[in-house]
Amino acid sequence: MSEGQIFRVAVDAMGGDHAPEETVAGAVEAAREGNVQVGLVGDPTVVQAEIEKHDTSGLPILPIESEGFIEEGEQPAIALRQKPKASVVVATSLVKKGMADGAVTMGSTGGAMAAAAVILGMMEGIERPALGGPIVGFAPNTVILDVGSNVDCRPSQLLSFGVIGDLWARIFWDVKNPRVSLLSVGSEFGKGNKQVRETSELFAKSGLNFVGNLEPHELPAGNVDVAVTDGFVGNVVMKLTEGIGQASIDLLRDGLQGRLSNDEIDSLAAELYEKTHVANHNGGGPLLGVNGVSIVGHGSGKREEVKRAIGIAKMLHDLGFTERLRDELAAVHGKVGG
Amino acid sequence: MSEGQIFRVAVDAMGGDHAPEETVAGAVEAAREGNVQVGLVGDPTVVQAEIEKHDTSGLPILPIESEGFIEEGEQPAIALRQKPKASVVVATSLVKKGMADGAVTMGSTGGAMAAAAVILGMMEGIERPALGGPIVGFAPNTVILDVGSNVDCRPSQLLSFGVIGDLWARIFWDVKNPRVSLLSVGSEFGKGNKQVRETSELFAKSGLNFVGNLEPHELPAGNVDVAVTDGFVGNVVMKLTEGIGQASIDLLRDGLQGRLSNDEIDSLAAELYEKTHVANHNGGGPLLGVNGVSIVGHGSGKREEVKRAIGIAKMLHDLGFTERLRDELAAVHGKVGG
Repeated sequence: MSEGQIFRVAVDAMGGDHAPEETVAGAVEAAREGNVQVGLVGDPTVVQAEIEKHDTSGLPILPIESEGFIEEGEQPAIALRQKPKASVVVATSLVKKGMADGAVTMGSTGGAMAAAAVILGMMEGIERPALGGPIVGFAPNTVILDVGSNVDCRPSQLLSFGVIGDLWARIFWDVKNPRVSLLSVGSEFGKGNKQVRETSELFAKSGLNFVGNLEPHELPAGNVDVAVTDGFVGNVVMKLTEGIGQASIDLLRDGLQGRLSNDEIDSLAAELYEKTHVANHNGGGPLLGVNGVSIVGHGSGKREEVKRAIGIAKMLHDLGFTERLRDELAAVHGKVGG
Repeated sequence: MSEGQIFRVAVDAMGGDHAPEETVAGAVEAAREGNVQVGLVGDPTVVQAEIEKHDTSGLPILPIESEGFIEEGEQPAIALRQKPKASVVVATSLVKKGMADGAVTMGSTGGAMAAAAVILGMMEGIERPALGGPIVGFAPNTVILDVGSNVDCRPSQLLSFGVIGDLWARIFWDVKNPRVSLLSVGSEFGKGNKQVRETSELFAKSGLNFVGNLEPHELPAGNVDVAVTDGFVGNVVMKLTEGIGQASIDLLRDGLQGRLSNDEIDSLAAELYEKTHVANHNGGGPLLGVNGVSIVGHGSGKREEVKRAIGIAKMLHDLGFTERLRDELAAVHGKVGG
């Protein structure tokens, strides 16, 4: 698959705080940049009206009909049953049917996860779609996962996250032999809770470059490529980083008031915000471990974030991420018998 | 018990980075301030030599013999067997025998915990000594626990931590009806991992003022009096707060270099350090849930921290913390049957 190939993306036009206006606008921009064919999934009348706000002549953009959409806060499993033609469901189904190479939504993360899990299915060793990324911005080349819905993990799942992170570092960051660590509360091998102790054993025989435990205060230093943890702790890491970041920004603003210009203070605050609010700043990421490309953007994202999410989907597709990950998960789980 | 009563403290003179010099000096200062009688537990020759550096005439200070001490990094259970007369063991035993009202050490936390657990014993609903405090300095009136060694917790243990935190807020901060929360990754009741879901049920019938889940980014706001979590997550919170704090300080220093005076930069950095490194700054805290007063100071603490640790021990004793906590734990566990 070369990067020159046309990438067919199904965009959920109805999901997100600024849908459909910004989702359609972002999709149109992506199509305009070339090599992307866009299916805009939503209420056809609404979508068509948005498309007509742009000059799309000659662009490969077509509306695709869906009925309703899954809202933030809805119980995903129930929503999926009650709204079988919801926009994110239709978009994900297009990937399953081979009619799209990837799906993108700025809507409910839970809805997108449920749709991906049910429609695309999970890879070996994965129970729910995982989320991750360099969520501590001080360490932009450390992927931390899971930070999402896998709040209760067996060791074999954590091993899977290690495999995902390893591939992530190799494929996106060109790291030859990624250093994979387990987030824990002590640095010695096996130190931590029961989950960490058992997972250490699996990692030790996984063939991954397992460098042992990483303590949370070491995260910002970026001395590992991958930090594995369950979705509960990972989510705590993400949200606490945001909270401490915001409180530090407030303290900074108070302390600098009247000593520096407002522009200088704003600039310093923005830098600290960017380092501590990566999810807001980057606007989402791939659902990891599902059999197909599915990207969930941040609900607050606007056209730039929509375009960026489509770009991520295209990159995953071009790199054959799904197929490679499926192979590597199967290989590692075969090796450890986990 | 009035605050005017003499408090008899057993101080581990040998534990800590700056023992015996600073531990003895801090103990002498505490005795000089009055109402404190000090037993200095250690090698008698060494301790006597340190005592003689000070003018202690008329002060209630006496050396108490011990053999060896438990070092940082030693496996506590093994150390306890191999060194049955170690300083922390002797100090803790004096509390057990009623010959001291409290023990203070700046030495190995693990050693102090093991000594307290074995010699003093645990209260109902507590499996190991718990550690906690307002470890996120932005919220100086939110006690977070456990942050220590209880890395695998049953729901009934987490309930016990809620009882401890509730008493902490009432007794130390004079809060009438403390708001007790569970740290979790979603704000709705019961949202989180299996542990949180099960613990929510116990809290709901505990009689405590349970206000539900608290998400990590809300911690710095200080809108709850107590945040309960297991020792793994609590330790992650403590260490990540330190890590993000330090990285923010570094960013701040870089960004302000040449724009403010070094003194101004240092002062702002110190303020942020204080907010994010509470354990280092406050220098330790009580072992919670043990049948007796036992304070572990930070290993790096000097005479000021030793004196402060003795002050904490005296306060716990004067307030009848141990007896009240034992009663309340028994009452709550009786109520929920947990």
